[in-house]
Amino acid sequence: MDLMSVIGQQFETDLVALRDRVNTRLAEYVAAVPDCPETLRESMGYSLLAGGKRLRPILVLLACEACGGAVESALPAACAIEMIHTYSLIHDDLPAMDNDDYRRGRLTNHKVYGDAMAILAGDALLTLAFEVIARDTHPGSVAAACCADLAAASGWCGMVGGQVADLEAEQREARQTTGRTSQNDRGPLDSAAELRQLEAIHRRKTGRLLTSAVTLGARVAQADTNLLGRLEEFGKRVGLAFQIADDLLDVTGDAAKMGKNVGKDATLGKMTYPALLGLEGSRRKADDLIREACGLVEPMGDRARSLCELAKFVTKRDH
Amino acid sequence: MDLMSVIGQQFETDLVALRDRVNTRLAEYVAAVPDCPETLRESMGYSLLAGGKRLRPILVLLACEACGGAVESALPAACAIEMIHTYSLIHDDLPAMDNDDYRRGRLTNHKVYGDAMAILAGDALLTLAFEVIARDTHPGSVAAACCADLAAASGWCGMVGGQVADLEAEQREARQTTGRTSQNDRGPLDSAAELRQLEAIHRRKTGRLLTSAVTLGARVAQADTNLLGRLEEFGKRVGLAFQIADDLLDVTGDAAKMGKNVGKDATLGKMTYPALLGLEGSRRKADDLIREACGLVEPMGDRARSLCELAKFVTKRDH
Repeated sequence: MDLMSVIGQQFETDLVALRDRVNTRLAEYVAAVPDCPETLRESMGYSLLAGGKRLRPILVLLACEACGGAVESALPAACAIEMIHTYSLIHDDLPAMDNDDYRRGRLTNHKVYGDAMAILAGDALLTLAFEVIARDTHPGSVAAACCADLAAASGWCGMVGGQVADLEAEQREARQTTGRTSQNDRGPLDSAAELRQLEAIHRRKTGRLLTSAVTLGARVAQADTNLLGRLEEFGKRVGLAFQIADDLLDVTGDAAKMGKNVGKDATLGKMTYPALLGLEGSRRKADDLIREACGLVEPMGDRARSLCELAKFVTKRDH
Repeated sequence: MDLMSVIGQQFETDLVALRDRVNTRLAEYVAAVPDCPETLRESMGYSLLAGGKRLRPILVLLACEACGGAVESALPAACAIEMIHTYSLIHDDLPAMDNDDYRRGRLTNHKVYGDAMAILAGDALLTLAFEVIARDTHPGSVAAACCADLAAASGWCGMVGGQVADLEAEQREARQTTGRTSQNDRGPLDSAAELRQLEAIHRRKTGRLLTSAVTLGARVAQADTNLLGRLEEFGKRVGLAFQIADDLLDVTGDAAKMGKNVGKDATLGKMTYPALLGLEGSRRKADDLIREACGLVEPMGDRARSLCELAKFVTKRDH
């Protein structure tokens, strides 16, 4: 099944066009500058320009359009969120973290440039994200609101916090798997509690950044509070559905298409949606979330149609 | 010699009061929040609240005051720059980078919390810096200008770029010390070229962030372009003088007072100001820079007096 075959022909063309615009602008943002060491620039570009679906930036652009804004005006925010996403992958792949050798079908950043450069390239991309939004989004008050939104979504109470919670949950699982080492170890959680814990982790680890993609677009279009709130609720549901789809792909996906190892979650005994709800239950939950999400933006009429199409695509993708 | 004994009694009192305000606000910024994992918050606070001179935030506050702004209005930017400085220390100390065990007299972050948590705490502090400025600096247009300034100073063409250039220079030195391994290896640079290279590294690695401290303060006070430019030139000179003083302290300083190892530069055969200009030559250069810096802000009259006092303190400190 081709990347876009699940969606309509016209929408497919639109999506490819948007992705191309994002890729072009990203390449411009990391083009050679006199004052940056070439190795650092190369390392940043290696991961940032490695392809990928560009789901987050496209969400920014479509949300902006759905709120009556111009796609062009949302490109800095769209690129910024992809920089944040990319830095998080570079740091997550490090030996001190998940220790992954492959990502998007290529060697991970630290396998090519070494751990020190990978840490610094991640730091530089994270910083560049805020530079790009703050400098290139107008007016300044909107730029500031976007910086605050993106930082809250990706920081200690958002993505980074979720990554810590995930690491800590893995360590707990590992302790339980290898047997109790102390009387203080907690027993396994019941499945409702596990589901709550899983959702709490994912809400932060991936959900908040995906939600921020939608609200960034709305902010650039200077949407009113009511519309912003509606899109935030849309984003929350799409973010959770995305994570469920990701867990499903780790069970049913094709390593070659995905460009990374699959089945890793099960090997690690990780808490996932398929492990808690089964394959069918997980698919149903994802579909329900997308239906709710589309219901939320339906009153916005035709201009929100692409946003809803993209939401559907999130759960149907095969890599 | 006490921290403040080189400066006047009233200025000393003022400086301690400013430092206390910064420390209080920093503690508020990393106070417990329901949605952040406690270990992450602890790790962030461990390094952020470990003391230190708070030179950068105090520069922000004094520059704001010198341009007619209220100290209170510059506190978010002041805290943000200290978060950036702290994250850079946490990441620099990692085994993959400088592999340091002590910092400010305590175990480094990764020695206490592990490498993964140290990477994430650094990421979280870097992100929080932009959240704090973007959310708490007013009006929004000033917040955006501050975010852009701080990001440019600390990113790929600023601090992170300087760190990469420094790592690469060290690797070159190491190759030269262990003998030529290939005919393509360059011979040692002549000392004028070495001095240029040293200044280029420091301008980015430490100079741009110190300069940004001064321009952030000016921006919060909504200084005009002329005044902003004058303060930028002031900051550049203070930044370079600071680095020369730092190199001198590595030769003449007291490990107990500094809370970290000294003499490390010489052991590593690192290019430094004392190595290139001698102790006396380095002191003279630092004094010249501070004299120039103070000359630049003299026309601003009394309100810039504290800024000039602080500049003098930068080269006289003993840790």
